[in-house]
Amino acid sequence: MADTAPSLLVVSAHAGDFVWRAGGAIAAATQRGERAHVVCLSYGERGESASQWLQGKSLEDIKAIRRDEATAAASALGADIEFLDAGDYPLLETTATVEKLVDVYRRVQPTVVLTHPLTDPYNGDHPAAARMALQARVLAQAIGVANSDGTYPGTDDIIGAPPVFFFEPHQPEQSDFKPNVLLDITAAFPLKRKAMECLPAQKHMWEYYTSLAVRRGVQVKRNAGPNLGLPVDTMGEAYMRYLPQVTDVLA
Amino acid sequence: MADTAPSLLVVSAHAGDFVWRAGGAIAAATQRGERAHVVCLSYGERGESASQWLQGKSLEDIKAIRRDEATAAASALGADIEFLDAGDYPLLETTATVEKLVDVYRRVQPTVVLTHPLTDPYNGDHPAAARMALQARVLAQAIGVANSDGTYPGTDDIIGAPPVFFFEPHQPEQSDFKPNVLLDITAAFPLKRKAMECLPAQKHMWEYYTSLAVRRGVQVKRNAGPNLGLPVDTMGEAYMRYLPQVTDVLA
Amino acid sequence: MADTAPSLLVVSAHAGDFVWRAGGAIAAATQRGERAHVVCLSYGERGESASQWLQGKSLEDIKAIRRDEATAAASALGADIEFLDAGDYPLLETTATVEKLVDVYRRVQPTVVLTHPLTDPYNGDHPAAARMALQARVLAQAIGVANSDGTYPGTDDIIGAPPVFFFEPHQPEQSDFKPNVLLDITAAFPLKRKAMECLPAQKHMWEYYTSLAVRRGVQVKRNAGPNLGLPVDTMGEAYMRYLPQVTDVLA
Amino acid sequence: MADTAPSLLVVSAHAGDFVWRAGGAIAAATQRGERAHVVCLSYGERGESASQWLQGKSLEDIKAIRRDEATAAASALGADIEFLDAGDYPLLETTATVEKLVDVYRRVQPTVVLTHPLTDPYNGDHPAAARMALQARVLAQAIGVANSDGTYPGTDDIIGAPPVFFFEPHQPEQSDFKPNVLLDITAAFPLKRKAMECLPAQKHMWEYYTSLAVRRGVQVKRNAGPNLGLPVDTMGEAYMRYLPQVTDVLA
Amino acid sequence: MADTAPSLLVVSAHAGDFVWRAGGAIAAATQRGERAHVVCLSYGERGESASQWLQGKSLEDIKAIRRDEATAAASALGADIEFLDAGDYPLLETTATVEKLVDVYRRVQPTVVLTHPLTDPYNGDHPAAARMALQARVLAQAIGVANSDGTYPGTDDIIGAPPVFFFEPHQPEQSDFKPNVLLDITAAFPLKRKAMECLPAQKHMWEYYTSLAVRRGVQVKRNAGPNLGLPVDTMGEAYMRYLPQVTDVLA
Amino acid sequence: MADTAPSLLVVSAHAGDFVWRAGGAIAAATQRGERAHVVCLSYGERGESASQWLQGKSLEDIKAIRRDEATAAASALGADIEFLDAGDYPLLETTATVEKLVDVYRRVQPTVVLTHPLTDPYNGDHPAAARMALQARVLAQAIGVANSDGTYPGTDDIIGAPPVFFFEPHQPEQSDFKPNVLLDITAAFPLKRKAMECLPAQKHMWEYYTSLAVRRGVQVKRNAGPNLGLPVDTMGEAYMRYLPQVTDVLA
Repeated sequence: MADTAPSLLVVSAHAGDFVWRAGGAIAAATQRGERAHVVCLSYGERGESASQWLQGKSLEDIKAIRRDEATAAASALGADIEFLDAGDYPLLETTATVEKLVDVYRRVQPTVVLTHPLTDPYNGDHPAAARMALQARVLAQAIGVANSDGTYPGTDDIIGAPPVFFFEPHQPEQSDFKPNVLLDITAAFPLKRKAMECLPAQKHMWEYYTSLAVRRGVQVKRNAGPNLGLPVDTMGEAYMRYLPQVTDVLA
Repeated sequence: MADTAPSLLVVSAHAGDFVWRAGGAIAAATQRGERAHVVCLSYGERGESASQWLQGKSLEDIKAIRRDEATAAASALGADIEFLDAGDYPLLETTATVEKLVDVYRRVQPTVVLTHPLTDPYNGDHPAAARMALQARVLAQAIGVANSDGTYPGTDDIIGAPPVFFFEPHQPEQSDFKPNVLLDITAAFPLKRKAMECLPAQKHMWEYYTSLAVRRGVQVKRNAGPNLGLPVDTMGEAYMRYLPQVTDVLA
Repeated sequence: MADTAPSLLVVSAHAGDFVWRAGGAIAAATQRGERAHVVCLSYGERGESASQWLQGKSLEDIKAIRRDEATAAASALGADIEFLDAGDYPLLETTATVEKLVDVYRRVQPTVVLTHPLTDPYNGDHPAAARMALQARVLAQAIGVANSDGTYPGTDDIIGAPPVFFFEPHQPEQSDFKPNVLLDITAAFPLKRKAMECLPAQKHMWEYYTSLAVRRGVQVKRNAGPNLGLPVDTMGEAYMRYLPQVTDVLA
Repeated sequence: MADTAPSLLVVSAHAGDFVWRAGGAIAAATQRGERAHVVCLSYGERGESASQWLQGKSLEDIKAIRRDEATAAASALGADIEFLDAGDYPLLETTATVEKLVDVYRRVQPTVVLTHPLTDPYNGDHPAAARMALQARVLAQAIGVANSDGTYPGTDDIIGAPPVFFFEPHQPEQSDFKPNVLLDITAAFPLKRKAMECLPAQKHMWEYYTSLAVRRGVQVKRNAGPNLGLPVDTMGEAYMRYLPQVTDVLA
Repeated sequence: MADTAPSLLVVSAHAGDFVWRAGGAIAAATQRGERAHVVCLSYGERGESASQWLQGKSLEDIKAIRRDEATAAASALGADIEFLDAGDYPLLETTATVEKLVDVYRRVQPTVVLTHPLTDPYNGDHPAAARMALQARVLAQAIGVANSDGTYPGTDDIIGAPPVFFFEPHQPEQSDFKPNVLLDITAAFPLKRKAMECLPAQKHMWEYYTSLAVRRGVQVKRNAGPNLGLPVDTMGEAYMRYLPQVTDVLA
Repeated sequence: MADTAPSLLVVSAHAGDFVWRAGGAIAAATQRGERAHVVCLSYGERGESASQWLQGKSLEDIKAIRRDEATAAASALGADIEFLDAGDYPLLETTATVEKLVDVYRRVQPTVVLTHPLTDPYNGDHPAAARMALQARVLAQAIGVANSDGTYPGTDDIIGAPPVFFFEPHQPEQSDFKPNVLLDITAAFPLKRKAMECLPAQKHMWEYYTSLAVRRGVQVKRNAGPNLGLPVDTMGEAYMRYLPQVTDVLA
């Protein structure tokens, strides 16, 4: 029987994405003592590093800088991190990257998966990452699908059917992002802020995503109802559940 | 501060609807010791009583028969029931019925609301019931909206923001019903079956809705993943959440 | 057992609508020797008679003119016609009009129903007509729903479940009109043209709807495939089926 | 020939709505020397005045307070304002209110119309206002539709086909609000802020809508492209165009 | 002129799919004396053969078993079958497989095509099969597109525009499957049952798909109307038409 | 700073597409003295040249013929043209073609981009062209994305964020084409007609697209409103804006 201890897997197209969009959920998990693992498909070295290119840095230097920053941010959140270095702009959907992700799923045995939504007119790497994350999740369930080294998984190695949540894109309405889960990240927010501050090149984003957390927090309060006594400074993150919720209590 | 003990409110267009579509959720709530309250806007006396009309029964007789059956079914589920007798085929959306529903909300103080989905090409009464249930829910939140007797509510009388779930229509795909919540009703199913058997005129529906519970149970298992060890005879009901889920744990 | 001889019912918001949008289907039915019946909910006296208002005609005069024109057009198509005179701009959805339509359904016993689509940002009367046509169709099926004179229908009087087709609005894309049925009206087109010419005040529309029939005919040919040998001057009308097609042959 | 000088009409369900959602567009119009006219269908006296109800104020007092505040805010924006006092929570769709709006359209001769979007699960008054605003716009175009005093309009009195823009609801994603127009309100924002400050009971909203303007301004810059040289503190408002844009230049 | 005798082509991602989802339509065709041809893109050897992997069978053994089972099932339905062995989990979209499908289309000259729907969050092979089936259908129509052996087709070799129907996925609502064709398979069902019984490893599916046929049969009866005298045990299959129906009679 | 003089880029799957669908917009741009550049990804040599294949012409001959025709048509419109010769039926999405398009974007520095819509069930090359056009547009913005020769762009070479408009497909409703921009091409139409006449093999299309321009012109007038005094023979083209419009005036 596979491991069912809570285990969060975050599939991120670029090195910074998981911080802005899912930092609260990651920190909340690790604050509960759960494991969180981030896999960055690329460093965002071409498409999300304009300031470093303008400074004349080399491709390898940029990758190293972004790797270090993302590693620090993951650490601030209490999460593990690994990098597949699959390239960005464009992040290509390949069999090889999907196979590596199958290995990750089987190693991490996630009980929850976070990734990008399937639509983003401003950045094709994000949907490409999501498509690979979703495909690998299905393949990792099948005992007939080999690992990337050609061996076959045992019955303990294949995964179950962990729920998938899409985190918020930069322009949600243009990305058909209709949140159906509002996560209260009030207690986790200080760690998210600390993680954001590990990314000094995007200092203007610190306030932007803090302000977004306030706005999503207002929605947490509005949808929870006034009687729940949530604090005035409730902070939130928005998610879109990809598959039906399974539950034994409606709430 | 309003009462936040769990309290389930079910708004049903006709006398039998709540049994077929939400009997599992109702029984699960009462099995947990929670309160469940059903309000039937009509008896379904014109549109859903063909066999009784063919037997030559009068309108008043039919209403009485269906009232008795629904009362027995609610009792089998452990729920309270009341009838607004607002007429069916068509169930008209009126200010008077909405006002009565506002009173019901304030009296029941629901923490969860179940009703029909907003689309049903085969039966316009169902969406009409849903629209009134949703409108009354919003009005009941406002301290400036009077009760139906003209008095104003106190701060304890207004309601919070209970989540709303749409239960499954008879032809889900034609009714734009895309379930996003699959409820495990395995333990509650015997009570649901007992409640269905309180409706002898629709005996052919007993098997139909038992078979549907099996099918939704298969989906419960499929979406929960094989590792959760759900029994082979898991039974389910499907719901559609109307507003975002508020949570502090993604799962 | 109700009559199942083919019988076409067309529910038209204004006096002219059925000609432009469904004239081909109506003529095709009557050419096959089937019965066709048009019910106009209004004359279009306020909203679709600008030229007559500019000529200083009175409301009653305009209604009489449009009634005569529509009667002539129906006659050219081989159809019966009746007028409910329910008023236009706005055409109000009322219980009284729906009850009259229930009577029409039970009298006509349609095997096919044509009406407007449910969306039209340029003319709210069209969706209102459609909503009433759909509601009356469901009510007319129920033996417990009285006729408008208070009597109850017999088992021969209630109707079955005739398929409903929405005809093409003036601005299809803005009205969410995605045709899923393309009707070949080549043989019927001369009658449609003749019917259009019964409406002299809208002479500019004759060419417009002839050109539209050519365009829809091109789509008939494209979707039928080149092998069917349809003539180069195939004429068409586009429809949207509201409920699933029931068939015993896929084709 | 009707007047085609620029003229902005804003149809607002409650007394405050136009300030938060469209204050920038209104101020931008009046800064260009154009006329702007706001019509408030209700004062928001029941549903949006909780703090005043909690203070024990009477219905009439609350209406007067909100009327004064909205009048001051409109004045700060350079706009005219009128109130139809049609009641809120619920704002009922009535023939009488639509007729009054037809008069407003014919009097104001708008070249642009702003109103609420058609969906809002949190507040049914907003879509009701939008439906009436849209219906009245179509009726006001028809020479056969009488004014509310029973007289008929002249050819100068009827209106053309002004474009309609839906302004942003409080929870855009839940309201199917996908902005397709991003308005640069940088120059107008100080007036919007001044108008917001005319609503002291909602002081917490001042920062919320300032922060939203920053966020929409980021999107203005992102969608305009970096080459346009927009200032770093660009402020924006988001709109949804209801009907196709008509233009002779793609841009 | 190409052959227009009725000819059914079924494009199935895995060896068993055509049985569960389209067995009724296939048997109905062959019962009418028409030709039916099934093409399986893969054997489902990795993703749909868990029980055989658990028994320690080899990949080649599994492929052989599933090939034999599918061949027997096709035979029970009266259909021809061929296998492209393109691999599953994932079934890759390749030019080579599309070219083989072009050859199949030109050889089979289908007048009707059945395949998977374009969305299935639980199994990416199904949409991949559908996309290749649709692409090949368009390519096979073009006289300038060579066969896979490099020769060019003659005018008799290219195909027309056969209608495409998507058969029902395992979780229809999650796959945006909104049936618009309900097929009466009552007479064909015994053959479908026999074909299902050729797949002994999925014995639990026999009842599941029998029960689904009952449920779709109830919808056949409901949508056909009570007057058509369909038997109480009407069995059905649901389909989604991909392109508009072309017809000369609305029915 | 990049060049911001108006510059129109049209990405066309096949040699003729830009003429039928965007000829008016192109001619309108060049009539205003602006630059227009067409890039044809293929010649449409396999899928859109049936008559030439039937005449027994060779692939190379057909490509040459279509190149000449498209060059003449572009010239008639006052536009430049280039051909990537990437092959059609199918037009494959490749990294190489996307890289060439990135070069084109950086060379042309478009301020407006026109291409196919993202859906077309009748021709998969059209959406493939659109996907590549959109992807290349995003990549061309990034300073870290190299040119196809391996050099890196300077800050003057990368592009801004030009708006994208999808032009009208042959079967708009089946292609989810909901126009949100109606372009008045009355003055440009004679040039469009002249360009269409450069394509003699599709003579039947000349009238078809002239008739479509009339129909879209009727919609231009309807949506502009009667007061704008547009001529009775207004001609139009329909477009779908892909990203939000950025503006400082609502109109």
